[in-house]
Amino acid sequence: MKLAGIEISARGPDRSAGIAARERQDNLTKPPGSLGRLEEMSVRLCEITGRCPPRLGDKVIVVCAADHGVTEEGVSPYPSDVTAQMLLNFAGGGAAINVLAGEAGARVVLLNAGTRSAVEHPSVLDKRIRAGTANMARGPAMTEKEAEACVLAGFETARSEIRSGAGLLAAGDMGIGNTTSASAIIAALTGQPVEQLVGRGTGLDDEGLARKVSVVRKALETNRPDPGEAMDVLAKVGGLEIGAMAGVMLACADEGVPVIVDGLISTAAALIAERACPGARGAMFASHLSVEPGHRPALEELGLEPFLDLSMRLGEGTGAALAMMVLECSVKLLAEMATFEEAGVSRENDGSSET
Amino acid sequence: MKLAGIEISARGPDRSAGIAARERQDNLTKPPGSLGRLEEMSVRLCEITGRCPPRLGDKVIVVCAADHGVTEEGVSPYPSDVTAQMLLNFAGGGAAINVLAGEAGARVVLLNAGTRSAVEHPSVLDKRIRAGTANMARGPAMTEKEAEACVLAGFETARSEIRSGAGLLAAGDMGIGNTTSASAIIAALTGQPVEQLVGRGTGLDDEGLARKVSVVRKALETNRPDPGEAMDVLAKVGGLEIGAMAGVMLACADEGVPVIVDGLISTAAALIAERACPGARGAMFASHLSVEPGHRPALEELGLEPFLDLSMRLGEGTGAALAMMVLECSVKLLAEMATFEEAGVSRENDGSSET
Repeated sequence: MKLAGIEISARGPDRSAGIAARERQDNLTKPPGSLGRLEEMSVRLCEITGRCPPRLGDKVIVVCAADHGVTEEGVSPYPSDVTAQMLLNFAGGGAAINVLAGEAGARVVLLNAGTRSAVEHPSVLDKRIRAGTANMARGPAMTEKEAEACVLAGFETARSEIRSGAGLLAAGDMGIGNTTSASAIIAALTGQPVEQLVGRGTGLDDEGLARKVSVVRKALETNRPDPGEAMDVLAKVGGLEIGAMAGVMLACADEGVPVIVDGLISTAAALIAERACPGARGAMFASHLSVEPGHRPALEELGLEPFLDLSMRLGEGTGAALAMMVLECSVKLLAEMATFEEAGVSRENDGSSET
Repeated sequence: MKLAGIEISARGPDRSAGIAARERQDNLTKPPGSLGRLEEMSVRLCEITGRCPPRLGDKVIVVCAADHGVTEEGVSPYPSDVTAQMLLNFAGGGAAINVLAGEAGARVVLLNAGTRSAVEHPSVLDKRIRAGTANMARGPAMTEKEAEACVLAGFETARSEIRSGAGLLAAGDMGIGNTTSASAIIAALTGQPVEQLVGRGTGLDDEGLARKVSVVRKALETNRPDPGEAMDVLAKVGGLEIGAMAGVMLACADEGVPVIVDGLISTAAALIAERACPGARGAMFASHLSVEPGHRPALEELGLEPFLDLSMRLGEGTGAALAMMVLECSVKLLAEMATFEEAGVSRENDGSSET
């Protein structure tokens, strides 16, 4: 794809690095395959980075924030002000993502893609494209140009991090109303029925849930996003932070750097990235399975399988931060375990009369 | 229960610490419940330890090793020598558990409950009860007295660790042939059909799997363990390391210290601990779901739900080590996140016209 004159393409997997990883895994002191998906992860990380063992470098979680005009329709129990307030909470280190990023050894980068009111803090990158999206239930959330601009904001932020040493990224979100937008994106791009995708978000009651379903339907009917055009879907029913997150993932695909997909919002962004730039998913890892009903179908569409089952529904990149620790473990196992020969351990079926 | 004159009983949950944890969770800057099972974990950790927030202290993984006479029946593709060889590999730091314990900030304690040949290494606690079990397909694996002795070895080791500062433990295993023993224990204690519980272990082919099923059946028929007597089940179809792991879990239940259950072998030990000392499971956390088919029914019997889905089947405490990181995160979130008031973030439905 082309974005503001930049040609973006997904680097394919480096098969030879993957083969080297598999060979090494089979020589480590454990029954072959017994580390299950930790082995697969290490192989994929080698394929993505082109090195065996891979060097992950700095870990960075880009948390993208923006507001949503669709909150006018009463789709969230929280007021839009909370987006900016939480951005300041992230900047102050008091949110869940700060705690989990700290545990994972990751740096949190805060990207304001479009809160209603400006957020002034030295730790917040001000890339506001506009003061929140328009209400998608009444017309397009943003223009095609604004959609490009928010993707570019995320792309440039992530690329700059990668070029200064980041080797494992994640994209997290903050935006009151954004599960409504994410559900609409997933409905548009997977073709699955809206009522099976929409969930309670931060905590809607039954009445609120029914309203949210009808708002998503109305947004899709009003705007008729073209499922073959990811940027059209983003412009019509997307969010500024969702576009920025897609940009983060595109930068990773383009640079050959692994990126962790978080919950519902992050996965909607991943779908946009993959559709805009086929093969982008090759750099992606799923983390956890959210309780939002749209999450699994979106992950399935991407061919990604989560490995944490924690019934989370917070966003911010929290599930991805936990997953970073597991990915790091998969690399350390590949790099640091002893081989059978080094440890003097017998292999299977190697001459014992018992076998 | 009484073990060598020591009265062991499970400390019940400290409800007031749990209530304090729930109240604090509901004041932290996130929608209530949105951290899902991370919130539940933090509440349970407060209930077990009687403190809010809990102090986990040192993390210790007790890896218990022993040999199994049933390997004579050809139930593993690996020779029994590998048990002792791997114990030396653990002592040398080259195994998967060493790498993962390092990442989790945990110390590995090596307890030799009964390898065939002695393992001499300063890092290996020599508590060999006997040189491997007898072949359970032909008679009891060990005497009732030996069963008590191996449980006591694990109990004393864990209690001594707890009294020197350990606040989060896990029990891991090494023992060629031990999935056969664990499957027999689970069959005896859950009453579920053997053919639904037995798996490929370290890598049996179809013929080996069929043989293993018939060996487990034969062991149960030959010994007729009494499902109402956990120590009888351990003696007749158990393993020395499995008894030691049960002892580790009993010490945790007795001292009010959380303990993480790993894969199939660890869960068989957990079942023995719970049946020998009802309520012991109150101190336990599941970690991952193994590919061994007997693992889920055993966890269900204990009312434990795993949260890592990594298709692992290695043992050693590897899944538990990963889970330690997640439990640690749940504590840090409870202890370190800002409250709504501290961060100046609005709560739900607090006056915005949008809601």
